[in-house]
Amino acid sequence: MTEKAHLREVGLRDGLQMVKTILTPQQKLEWCRREAAAGVGEIEVTSFVPAKVVPQFADAAEVAAGALQLGGFTVSALVPNLKGAERAFAIGVSKINYVLSASEEHNLANVRRSTAESIEDFRRIVALRNERAPDARVGCGIATAFGCTIAGAVPERRVVEIAATLAELGADEIVIPDTVGYGHPGQVRSLMRAVMTAVGDVPVACHFHDTRGLGLANVTAALEVGVRAFDASLGGLGGCPFAPGATGNIDSEDTVFLLESLGFDTGIDIEALVDLRRTVESWLPGERFCGAVARAGLPRTYRPAAEVT
Amino acid sequence: MTEKAHLREVGLRDGLQMVKTILTPQQKLEWCRREAAAGVGEIEVTSFVPAKVVPQFADAAEVAAGALQLGGFTVSALVPNLKGAERAFAIGVSKINYVLSASEEHNLANVRRSTAESIEDFRRIVALRNERAPDARVGCGIATAFGCTIAGAVPERRVVEIAATLAELGADEIVIPDTVGYGHPGQVRSLMRAVMTAVGDVPVACHFHDTRGLGLANVTAALEVGVRAFDASLGGLGGCPFAPGATGNIDSEDTVFLLESLGFDTGIDIEALVDLRRTVESWLPGERFCGAVARAGLPRTYRPAAEVT
Repeated sequence: MTEKAHLREVGLRDGLQMVKTILTPQQKLEWCRREAAAGVGEIEVTSFVPAKVVPQFADAAEVAAGALQLGGFTVSALVPNLKGAERAFAIGVSKINYVLSASEEHNLANVRRSTAESIEDFRRIVALRNERAPDARVGCGIATAFGCTIAGAVPERRVVEIAATLAELGADEIVIPDTVGYGHPGQVRSLMRAVMTAVGDVPVACHFHDTRGLGLANVTAALEVGVRAFDASLGGLGGCPFAPGATGNIDSEDTVFLLESLGFDTGIDIEALVDLRRTVESWLPGERFCGAVARAGLPRTYRPAAEVT
Repeated sequence: MTEKAHLREVGLRDGLQMVKTILTPQQKLEWCRREAAAGVGEIEVTSFVPAKVVPQFADAAEVAAGALQLGGFTVSALVPNLKGAERAFAIGVSKINYVLSASEEHNLANVRRSTAESIEDFRRIVALRNERAPDARVGCGIATAFGCTIAGAVPERRVVEIAATLAELGADEIVIPDTVGYGHPGQVRSLMRAVMTAVGDVPVACHFHDTRGLGLANVTAALEVGVRAFDASLGGLGGCPFAPGATGNIDSEDTVFLLESLGFDTGIDIEALVDLRRTVESWLPGERFCGAVARAGLPRTYRPAAEVT
């Protein structure tokens, strides 16, 4: 049996929050439909932020509802606060992703409250879920887990403590993001081992940026210590508007190529992703797309992991 | 004690053989001088190919002699054949790097002879060294070690056998290149372990391209199994003119960032490399430079390995 690995597409959220062009709900749903058809099992389809903060997501309700109608994949959405969670649960979103920062300074810049207040917010979101949408899953990301452009180093112990707290509060998944691209493979091995030990059975995912070229080296390191779920963005779109210097998420096509090459079955057709990327590129003129496989093509020797074993 | 890792700059050879602009010998020597001042211990300064094949290297003798006069680093040069080795030894080059291909098809396309004939050529080069330049070191690369665009898969056993033969013939270093960017971290771990076992005390280096985004993931994997020497190219310049689809070498600045972050002391000042890269970019208008650290800058938290321990 080939071991599975999971990719969550975050380009529609983490990618689109950084671009100039506002896509139509129809384009976003076309993106979802084709990405699901390529085999991606979870797509973060939007963010329930106020439209005045990020106009790209003024259509959040329409896109989430449309994605749920498409079916065939887990429809997840970012929620910045309790109000966002209320909106998402009302629509029936399968999974919401809340995010807070390990760095107090970054949390303040991002959502104007302390990390402890954000943890309180998460507790209320879990309670709301239990009351109104018991089938929905609630994940939580710990931004700046590998360091912060504002605060500098973030102690591993702090990240581990927050992760343990979130697990106790009922998180269904904990995401460890390298928000500003400070992480390296040694740090990834150490932090991810510690987090996974601290949270027990709660699934853990990594969210890497390729800011300093180490994105896929970090995925390799995370795989070594047992992480099997990764966020990635089609064409490497993305970043963080409040983290100066942060650039693209790891590229979905390249990430799948790495996972499959290492023998992890993702169920994803890379060439279908590359085709979709070309379409999304045509929708977003002037944006910087990254990723190497879309340029170089697959090796002649490439075979998906499921066909090798 | 911090463990050491070694970077060989190959941009002046592997990089410049792919660019349109022919640099002057003065520019090439300025590049060498500043790269050595940044702490790089070995630079492949040129290639002793016939000028009509690669006009960029018509000044090979002048550049090699000038680099030897600069001092402070190992002056190495690529030699495609016995004649090239004669020229290099006559000038007093510290180390020559010969290269043959594990793929017969690639060897034929590259130098119009069989791999066995190239191994014979290497034997004659070692004999020539013993006779004329006993202090010079002779390295040999095994191109297409991770696969070939023409032949497809290259069996690990074949690469290991060639490496063992080269070691027996007196190679002072064996370089394992991923000529066309087919390699992935699992393959790197497996092949490099096998090669290092087969060649005993002979030093082994890796030469990765970032064609499909896995260059630094492959460095990470090679480090795990004990490789401590890597080729890299300033700004990620480079490729192979006879391997369709091959793109840049791994980027020197990003590679040093990875090595130092993982606790390996390279002795190299990344910011000095980035400054030099800007100069080289100004010399080569229209060329594609890669690498992330030059764009994003170093993390606030970055400290060279030698300062951490």
